[in-house]
Amino acid sequence: MAGNIFGQLFRVTTFGESHGAAIGAVLDGVPPGLELSLDDIQYELNRRRPGQSDVTTPRKESDQAEILSGVFEGKTTGTPLAILIRNADQRSKDYSSLLKIFRPGHADFTMKQKFGVRDHRGGGRSSGRETACRVAAGAVARKILIREGISVLAYTTMIGGVSAREFDPQEIERNAVRAADPQAAREMIDRIHQVKDQGDSVGGIIEVRVNGLPAGLGDPVFDKLDARLAAAVMSIGAIKGIEFGDGFKAAEHTGAENNDAFIQQDGRIVTATNHSGGILGGISTGTEIILRAAVKPTSSISRKQTTVDQQGNAKEIQIEGRHDPCLCPRIVPVIEAMVALVLADCLLIQKFVN
Amino acid sequence: MAGNIFGQLFRVTTFGESHGAAIGAVLDGVPPGLELSLDDIQYELNRRRPGQSDVTTPRKESDQAEILSGVFEGKTTGTPLAILIRNADQRSKDYSSLLKIFRPGHADFTMKQKFGVRDHRGGGRSSGRETACRVAAGAVARKILIREGISVLAYTTMIGGVSAREFDPQEIERNAVRAADPQAAREMIDRIHQVKDQGDSVGGIIEVRVNGLPAGLGDPVFDKLDARLAAAVMSIGAIKGIEFGDGFKAAEHTGAENNDAFIQQDGRIVTATNHSGGILGGISTGTEIILRAAVKPTSSISRKQTTVDQQGNAKEIQIEGRHDPCLCPRIVPVIEAMVALVLADCLLIQKFVN
Amino acid sequence: MAGNIFGQLFRVTTFGESHGAAIGAVLDGVPPGLELSLDDIQYELNRRRPGQSDVTTPRKESDQAEILSGVFEGKTTGTPLAILIRNADQRSKDYSSLLKIFRPGHADFTMKQKFGVRDHRGGGRSSGRETACRVAAGAVARKILIREGISVLAYTTMIGGVSAREFDPQEIERNAVRAADPQAAREMIDRIHQVKDQGDSVGGIIEVRVNGLPAGLGDPVFDKLDARLAAAVMSIGAIKGIEFGDGFKAAEHTGAENNDAFIQQDGRIVTATNHSGGILGGISTGTEIILRAAVKPTSSISRKQTTVDQQGNAKEIQIEGRHDPCLCPRIVPVIEAMVALVLADCLLIQKFVN
Amino acid sequence: MAGNIFGQLFRVTTFGESHGAAIGAVLDGVPPGLELSLDDIQYELNRRRPGQSDVTTPRKESDQAEILSGVFEGKTTGTPLAILIRNADQRSKDYSSLLKIFRPGHADFTMKQKFGVRDHRGGGRSSGRETACRVAAGAVARKILIREGISVLAYTTMIGGVSAREFDPQEIERNAVRAADPQAAREMIDRIHQVKDQGDSVGGIIEVRVNGLPAGLGDPVFDKLDARLAAAVMSIGAIKGIEFGDGFKAAEHTGAENNDAFIQQDGRIVTATNHSGGILGGISTGTEIILRAAVKPTSSISRKQTTVDQQGNAKEIQIEGRHDPCLCPRIVPVIEAMVALVLADCLLIQKFVN
Repeated sequence: MAGNIFGQLFRVTTFGESHGAAIGAVLDGVPPGLELSLDDIQYELNRRRPGQSDVTTPRKESDQAEILSGVFEGKTTGTPLAILIRNADQRSKDYSSLLKIFRPGHADFTMKQKFGVRDHRGGGRSSGRETACRVAAGAVARKILIREGISVLAYTTMIGGVSAREFDPQEIERNAVRAADPQAAREMIDRIHQVKDQGDSVGGIIEVRVNGLPAGLGDPVFDKLDARLAAAVMSIGAIKGIEFGDGFKAAEHTGAENNDAFIQQDGRIVTATNHSGGILGGISTGTEIILRAAVKPTSSISRKQTTVDQQGNAKEIQIEGRHDPCLCPRIVPVIEAMVALVLADCLLIQKFVN
Repeated sequence: MAGNIFGQLFRVTTFGESHGAAIGAVLDGVPPGLELSLDDIQYELNRRRPGQSDVTTPRKESDQAEILSGVFEGKTTGTPLAILIRNADQRSKDYSSLLKIFRPGHADFTMKQKFGVRDHRGGGRSSGRETACRVAAGAVARKILIREGISVLAYTTMIGGVSAREFDPQEIERNAVRAADPQAAREMIDRIHQVKDQGDSVGGIIEVRVNGLPAGLGDPVFDKLDARLAAAVMSIGAIKGIEFGDGFKAAEHTGAENNDAFIQQDGRIVTATNHSGGILGGISTGTEIILRAAVKPTSSISRKQTTVDQQGNAKEIQIEGRHDPCLCPRIVPVIEAMVALVLADCLLIQKFVN
Repeated sequence: MAGNIFGQLFRVTTFGESHGAAIGAVLDGVPPGLELSLDDIQYELNRRRPGQSDVTTPRKESDQAEILSGVFEGKTTGTPLAILIRNADQRSKDYSSLLKIFRPGHADFTMKQKFGVRDHRGGGRSSGRETACRVAAGAVARKILIREGISVLAYTTMIGGVSAREFDPQEIERNAVRAADPQAAREMIDRIHQVKDQGDSVGGIIEVRVNGLPAGLGDPVFDKLDARLAAAVMSIGAIKGIEFGDGFKAAEHTGAENNDAFIQQDGRIVTATNHSGGILGGISTGTEIILRAAVKPTSSISRKQTTVDQQGNAKEIQIEGRHDPCLCPRIVPVIEAMVALVLADCLLIQKFVN
Repeated sequence: MAGNIFGQLFRVTTFGESHGAAIGAVLDGVPPGLELSLDDIQYELNRRRPGQSDVTTPRKESDQAEILSGVFEGKTTGTPLAILIRNADQRSKDYSSLLKIFRPGHADFTMKQKFGVRDHRGGGRSSGRETACRVAAGAVARKILIREGISVLAYTTMIGGVSAREFDPQEIERNAVRAADPQAAREMIDRIHQVKDQGDSVGGIIEVRVNGLPAGLGDPVFDKLDARLAAAVMSIGAIKGIEFGDGFKAAEHTGAENNDAFIQQDGRIVTATNHSGGILGGISTGTEIILRAAVKPTSSISRKQTTVDQQGNAKEIQIEGRHDPCLCPRIVPVIEAMVALVLADCLLIQKFVN
């Protein structure tokens, strides 16, 4: 009930505060016999790591993972797989001024309301740092997906009003904003520099495409595949909205426009169009899954803001430290991880139906 | 894992197919001592019932509920509360032609892919009829919320491109589309008649406002309040997207624009604006919760469509029967129910934190 | 958390009070395509039904089940299977004298302490009547086991000090106490008549044997097969102890006596002896599972007893009504049902490991 | 479903193999504001640690715990509390001879049957070493219980046929077998030396008493308090049986003998006797909880035994290494931990009922 365990058969528990001794994840329900190395995990962690480019935070965190259990002679054993990441660069001193003040846009106030007590060093448990554990766990989920020929690809399609016009998946890892359009990427980077120079930040949109997923995954009632993906993606701190296929646009369309006709293609039944985003009645159609998530602008900005302290006294606040002017580039691997966790779980669940 | 159980402490299990003997819900975790009558449940069921107006399906389903257990002398006992709704108007014959054909936009194909077998009489388990059980369960959840002074209000804000311009909550139950703007309601109704005459259907947007919710509900990691609400709402068949507060618009804004400043008001710490939609870091701020959901156009349309049968042979299909030309009016109470179920659960969960 | 849902993948929710409108069960996670008729369920319910012989209660309850959902054309569909049993013989009047008095040995006092309110008509939710729902659900689980060649057989081995000396499974359903030894059965029946004549009741021991179970079911840590079976069996009202294999006797033995040597037999690795009762490290060995459960004497006796009312005033109580002088005969099918539910669940869980 | 997560609101996930890098536990649902130091945890770990006396294994494992998260300035924060214990004394070489042979009484064979692969270094995941994590977690649960005035006390009452005749709780930690009777303790120790000299081991019985527990904990149906305690205790590797109150003896008694009369005492309603062991209908009565568990003799004995290898070939085996000749002394803190985990969970669950 405390919400630190995710998944049904393939379950991830994460732990750790941004400025505590360590963060980590324990995966329960990993199928035995899966090939897994520390490099598989470290590769994904490095994609999320701070300091990758001049449009991300320059903080230095090595985010070096250690596998504590569940892998023997290069293969998973079916027992819990624990991953540990020590917090190397704690710098608690940076945060002492925040002891009794509530940063706008952050969870400082709501955490205090919920728990009564609060680890005020940075975001504590509600820090974005926790997502490193998700990325590590997602790397394991991804191994399950790859074995079944399933790919999960996320990329930035808009930053602060600047949208991608093209889709070239090869370009994504070649630019600092992880856009699939190199020209738009340059404009997005310019937009980020602009807000950063003003001590401000900016939001964006990330799109995800899943290919190779068989038809039949998900459930028809509460655990619809889109419901589960929505919960997974919305559980990432900065996400404010999600849509599948035509999404909010579908609300303006008619049924004749929106229905995807079934056709036969290469001996398989598929849909001729994909307005639904690859999910019907909560179950995958076997066509590409498409979803988009809205990322809010980073709450930590260096501009002066008004707020209150714990007693409700008005205060001015100017957030120090080194923050991401736009979260999109670093959220891309986090969204991929969350989507991978859901899909791996659904794949395992489907094994017991058939 | 089969996805027919919803909630953590306050758990709802629904059962039943559209054309079987009955549908129903079992609620586990209802607090003892809650005043509850059959009328409380029937009132909400009547709001969802078909045949309310000329913009909903003219099907006649009495949707008469019976409480089987869990209530004694007008109060809940803390034991499972079972609610039964017999399927009065089964009319299986209408659906015999659909035995081996996949209706576009429906779950016929995906259910077959998932389970191998399929109850082909209407949507079976994936029919919208299952949402009656959610509405019945939601009526119980609502009693918990009312006791705490919490209100959940949903209404249609757009249908097929026609948007509301005003917000007068008194108007919602006075018009057939459940809009909070009487003039826009008339235009929305016209739009529905227009598509209906063309044998077509149309989508829309529903907005939800929650008031009276205390700060501190929800969890900071996987079970964020917005993540749970997103899953709840997305688990309703026709929903294709959801957003909170400024939602997708926030993706275009800067942090300075988007952050809500904390202020003190009447001795309480609140936010001066509400771009966040009442949730920070996955936990309620105590301010109004605002979310919007995109509803796709009804998949069942009387126009001729192309599809395939179970063998993949191309077929033409013309869906008989009496269907809603727009789902929004009847989804309003369903969304309210799902939101109420999540909030009642979060309220109970918070009792063990404090 | 309210404890009315049992199982992990194969989940049963039961509802209903002894003197309410109905009791029932909803099964979530039933594999699709399983042949199932109402007779399969009714057959087991009849084994548990009151009034079978002169050593059980003469109460008349027809316990007629109805399948509400989840079965189509004689096969399960993979959707929730709801079973309803109306309470025909409610006779609330018999219990009005018990409104404010706590019957010794019953849950009247503890239910009041837990929930604050209480349905005082008979045991309400804590009545043994609830086990009819388990038996109905167990009948479905049994169909899964039979398909895999697994049998679950329970029988009485002791009543009030009278023990069985033989084991002939054919005899079990031929005598009123369900013992596998016809001579001992007659002595047990005599013992029951003796206590009954004194307005008293008597306890006993039930043994269960499971055959045909493959090796590898269960889990090595918290969800050990024996831990799950223990919880399942101990969740039946009158059970006060459980042991596996040599059980409490093993506590007196040495390792050399207790260890079961592995041998090869017919190309399969098996144990030469079965002191362990068919489970090692929480996982089935493939050998026969053996467990025994202690059944306490029925709490409802017609003899005068001392107790208190809700205010703590001393009272004498003489329980009216028609009660079982020994619970063993009717608990046999309930224990079988609970064991079957656990095993069906473990079988499904194992499908996702392999 | 993989069975490494225990509890409902207060949830413990354990991880780690006996010869891997580390073992540990993550606790989700710890109430915020609970005072907790590393010493609280280390104290209990030291009670379970090998090498305490000459009747336990002489293996040296420091079992030094580290708290990684969830505690800030000496108090719990309500976020996951992770505890890490590095495996200092791995000695994998001792076990290389066991690579392909199945030790009698151990889970080697069943783990291989379940997972297909197996970490053959010692018991791997099924090693008793995992229980260190439970003891660490139980130390946190105990802090919750102590705050409410609840004590959990376990002690050895029988070893290899030698039974305690007295009960003096002060004596328990003063003798090597943790018996509450100093004279019987000496005889038990003699019995252990005797079997040890023969290269053998011996079983025993452990009793648990819980005092200070309020009435009303537990649930009336599947999650009966005794059912949950049974599962918790039976999930400890060597336990073969469990009974509550009069347990198996109750099976020989009549209702008049077994029913506990309610009386009023010091303004409280209590039972005059305690045949039930403090639980009626699955819910605590407020009287002392009493349970007993049967511990099998240690499976690892140095005597020569017959077994088979992975191919089923007959083999002789003589287990090297340093093993406990009797598990009781070291299981005492493990049983206390498991009982504490269940009770802390039930206490938290009850908060949402009231």
